[in-house]
Amino acid sequence: MAITSLINGNSSDAISLYDRGLQYGDGLFETIAVEDEKLLCWNEHLERLQIGCSKLKIPIPNQDTLSEEAQRLTSSVERGIIKIIVTRGQGGRGYALPVNIDSTRILSLYPWPEYSFGNPCDGIKVRVCNYRYAHNSVLAGIKHLNRIEQVLARSEWADRSIAEGIVLDNEENVIEGTMSNVFYIKGETLYTPELSACGVEGIIRQKVITLATELHLEVCINQISLKSLMDADEAFMCNSIIGVWPIKILDEKSFEVGDKTIQIKKILQKQNCISKL
Amino acid sequence: MAITSLINGNSSDAISLYDRGLQYGDGLFETIAVEDEKLLCWNEHLERLQIGCSKLKIPIPNQDTLSEEAQRLTSSVERGIIKIIVTRGQGGRGYALPVNIDSTRILSLYPWPEYSFGNPCDGIKVRVCNYRYAHNSVLAGIKHLNRIEQVLARSEWADRSIAEGIVLDNEENVIEGTMSNVFYIKGETLYTPELSACGVEGIIRQKVITLATELHLEVCINQISLKSLMDADEAFMCNSIIGVWPIKILDEKSFEVGDKTIQIKKILQKQNCISKL
Repeated sequence: MAITSLINGNSSDAISLYDRGLQYGDGLFETIAVEDEKLLCWNEHLERLQIGCSKLKIPIPNQDTLSEEAQRLTSSVERGIIKIIVTRGQGGRGYALPVNIDSTRILSLYPWPEYSFGNPCDGIKVRVCNYRYAHNSVLAGIKHLNRIEQVLARSEWADRSIAEGIVLDNEENVIEGTMSNVFYIKGETLYTPELSACGVEGIIRQKVITLATELHLEVCINQISLKSLMDADEAFMCNSIIGVWPIKILDEKSFEVGDKTIQIKKILQKQNCISKL
Repeated sequence: MAITSLINGNSSDAISLYDRGLQYGDGLFETIAVEDEKLLCWNEHLERLQIGCSKLKIPIPNQDTLSEEAQRLTSSVERGIIKIIVTRGQGGRGYALPVNIDSTRILSLYPWPEYSFGNPCDGIKVRVCNYRYAHNSVLAGIKHLNRIEQVLARSEWADRSIAEGIVLDNEENVIEGTMSNVFYIKGETLYTPELSACGVEGIIRQKVITLATELHLEVCINQISLKSLMDADEAFMCNSIIGVWPIKILDEKSFEVGDKTIQIKKILQKQNCISKL
């Protein structure tokens, strides 16, 4: 499947180099799974994009236009990824906001990734990164385009048997993966890091939190140490594309693929929140 | 003067939207003053670009190529700005570094900015921003493309009589302006914030520090409070384009344009470090 893109509705794969998305990373993005032409959790992604635009004072693209353009790209697509980028558009040199902002919207269709480290049903191998996320309460939660931190964390390994890296913040709290959120279960409680200082508020993260109470799990969203994660009964990582990946190995520690993790995964698949793969 | 750009040596103003500069802000930049066809502090800018590339593990563009391309753009230019952007180039979806990295180099010639808030010789009006810079010791110092923080700080005012904003960090230390470094003088000592946790190590900042000893000033690079800046005898902001701007008003506080500030400015002009304007 070729990658195809629409920039402000026009088929193109080139953008002005004066766009503030390139000049300053001045924008936001969303990454959405496509299955049988359907965009999974579409409304939730649009809602987060709106929240991000409001925080960065970027005009929110028309929702119907985004939906129509996404449908153009995904017609007859069995499985793929839609990435939406919204930037503050073009502007003069300098950080000051342009007087008239025409935000740029980019929708790209990517092929479904072929993950090469084995079957995520069996659990994945994860490392703890050396890089530490910086605290930034203004930017925490939203999916903005300033992603050098994730690039640096992900640059620490090339071993294709390692699927993901856990990143801590500069106070040694567990935050998330380089591209996913992290959960663990101990007894009858589901734990996940609170993300007020850094991290991305994942769509699937929110689905898992909502689902947990239906499964009679207590939910604890708090500061989490690496030690408590290592002491978990079961643990998993999640995002909109990978769905739910049980953690089998975290550095030196081995986990069993847990029943509750599998149960959460199956329900999310049944609810059409994540891919059935 | 039209804006003209070279992308990897070819005249163009469009870049692939799959470039990691747009996707993740995965790159660096330099902004260089041009006067009478000469690129001011060219070697110093190249050196900082190299340091940034090393930190981000981006292949360093060939120095002779950069020089040759900059000269192509600045031939017969009396006054202007060259902005260099270097990105990690194109790569697949995902943060992992591409196996083969072909960095993208972009050189753009911009017209000299027409600052609209009066004569910088008389001193400028500066505000203290509400936004606080986050601590990130890995990214501190270099001119990377993740600049949402500067955009947010600069978005706080539209009053064209205000030339610049002072930004503090989240521990209430003075760090710098939204686009410039800050200095103040008290007695026979020159003070400027240390930038190990955030901020950009400006080329002109380094020139001022070097120059100060020749002027028999003590140099103190340290954590700086807003109160101590407000208590200064004289204060100024600097970067490669604006040169040296004395601070005349900082929120409610007024400063005299100081002799030492003017002396520093004149010497930097004489040394061809900043524009003669």
